[in-house]
Amino acid sequence: MTATSQKNWVGEPSELLRVGEGFRLADVDPSSTPGYDGGKKTAQEDLESGAAELDELQERLFAESRSEATNASVLLVLQAMDSAGKGGIIRHVVGSVDPQGVALAAFKKPTAEELAHDFLWRIEKRLPEPGFIGVFDRSHYEDVLIGRVRSLAGADEIERRYGAINEFEKRVSERGTRTIKVMLHISPDEQRERLMERLERPDKHWKYNPGDVDERALWPKYMDAYQLVFERTSTPWAPWHVVPANSKWYARIAVQALLLEALERIDPQWPAATFDVEAEKARLAAS
Amino acid sequence: MTATSQKNWVGEPSELLRVGEGFRLADVDPSSTPGYDGGKKTAQEDLESGAAELDELQERLFAESRSEATNASVLLVLQAMDSAGKGGIIRHVVGSVDPQGVALAAFKKPTAEELAHDFLWRIEKRLPEPGFIGVFDRSHYEDVLIGRVRSLAGADEIERRYGAINEFEKRVSERGTRTIKVMLHISPDEQRERLMERLERPDKHWKYNPGDVDERALWPKYMDAYQLVFERTSTPWAPWHVVPANSKWYARIAVQALLLEALERIDPQWPAATFDVEAEKARLAAS
Repeated sequence: MTATSQKNWVGEPSELLRVGEGFRLADVDPSSTPGYDGGKKTAQEDLESGAAELDELQERLFAESRSEATNASVLLVLQAMDSAGKGGIIRHVVGSVDPQGVALAAFKKPTAEELAHDFLWRIEKRLPEPGFIGVFDRSHYEDVLIGRVRSLAGADEIERRYGAINEFEKRVSERGTRTIKVMLHISPDEQRERLMERLERPDKHWKYNPGDVDERALWPKYMDAYQLVFERTSTPWAPWHVVPANSKWYARIAVQALLLEALERIDPQWPAATFDVEAEKARLAAS
Repeated sequence: MTATSQKNWVGEPSELLRVGEGFRLADVDPSSTPGYDGGKKTAQEDLESGAAELDELQERLFAESRSEATNASVLLVLQAMDSAGKGGIIRHVVGSVDPQGVALAAFKKPTAEELAHDFLWRIEKRLPEPGFIGVFDRSHYEDVLIGRVRSLAGADEIERRYGAINEFEKRVSERGTRTIKVMLHISPDEQRERLMERLERPDKHWKYNPGDVDERALWPKYMDAYQLVFERTSTPWAPWHVVPANSKWYARIAVQALLLEALERIDPQWPAATFDVEAEKARLAAS
């Protein structure tokens, strides 16, 4: 990586954070800041310079996709326990990109119509078109996370879904979409603090749901479900990354760095003109 | 208006720019900056403070919409000749709002499926949900603009569409959506300069389309079509605004001011908690 926003990284974030062989979620410290050689202030500066880089790379990606030379797009899948900071990533990292180049899909509790279809039906419809950065705020992984923890589906069906997800994501990859899957990892104590803040501030009450406390009791079950998801669905074509997220500033630059790396690997180029530039200048001048 | 970003306006932008009785597009100078008592530098500062205000107002709108106390949303309809700056408005004005609160729809040349339906079919599907700022980059007005200029529909059908649009927009308004229709108005000379810049910069070639020069020859016909659109579809529930756009900085603060005014009139409030805050604090602390 050579971009200025990435000068404070020791190693490549995609390598450092990727779920590989023998990964254990329990070994990840949610308060750590792996690979980043700087603090909150430096991170803020890097986030700003990274924002400009990300914006330009996306515009190039879009421009190149118009030329039909490529189908490339990027898909960021965000999963996390409540209050882990998905919203902050979308606002502060994704929000720096021209809205015309972003396709955001927030997946809520499935509707009756969605439940009548396979779990991937609603996902397929929201895949990013060429040139876009797609962002999934929750995703098909809900169907193997809360789906497992709350027994919304049987064990056989959950098992089937891991395989279906891998095949689906492979097809997505073959079509030109680079998928980056991110779990924002916070600790239960950090979550308590963040939920408490929502209770203490009247302008945050609307974000609080009493059900959040009930979910906290299931924390170990959720962590087990994530561990299984990582073992079964971290593939070469759609790897998982666990981003320690107790420090919001770290989570933000880490996810930004993952996006920057993905775009730099695509290395989109401004497409050449498909018309005679000088002739068009003459036509335009005469018009 | 009381917000700090609006202190340099003399009069309300919505009044100054609104298409009312006897409006003549031909009388609007695309280089003018009506009502704004400042220059480019001041406008840049105002745009920044306005961005923060817009972001907070949208978040309040979203929060209030979750409480079921309101269905309110805002819809910005952008129409313009090519290169007039729609993209810049989306990037620099809309882009300051949290992406989670924006629903952007870019309407291109209709597909075969869309053409098989009434022209409002594809529009209805992209209306913003409560709490969102919807943005239409082109819209159903293409069907009475290029539709008329290029005779894509007969005179009777165009006539029918004006009425259909008014009824449609009334229904949208009654459902809680505040529609702001904006035509960005540039001069043919300004357009020539902007298109020439696209030809001169290799990183802008992808934005240039030789068909743009052909459309320039139809400029007077387009202006006539816009004039008719204004006469037939500027209604109390969905008024048109003509924003002089030769100065990009003016167009941006003007559209931002229109959005701010609309949101200030809705005056969204943080909703009250629907749970016992103290009891939840105790539950959370014990969890």
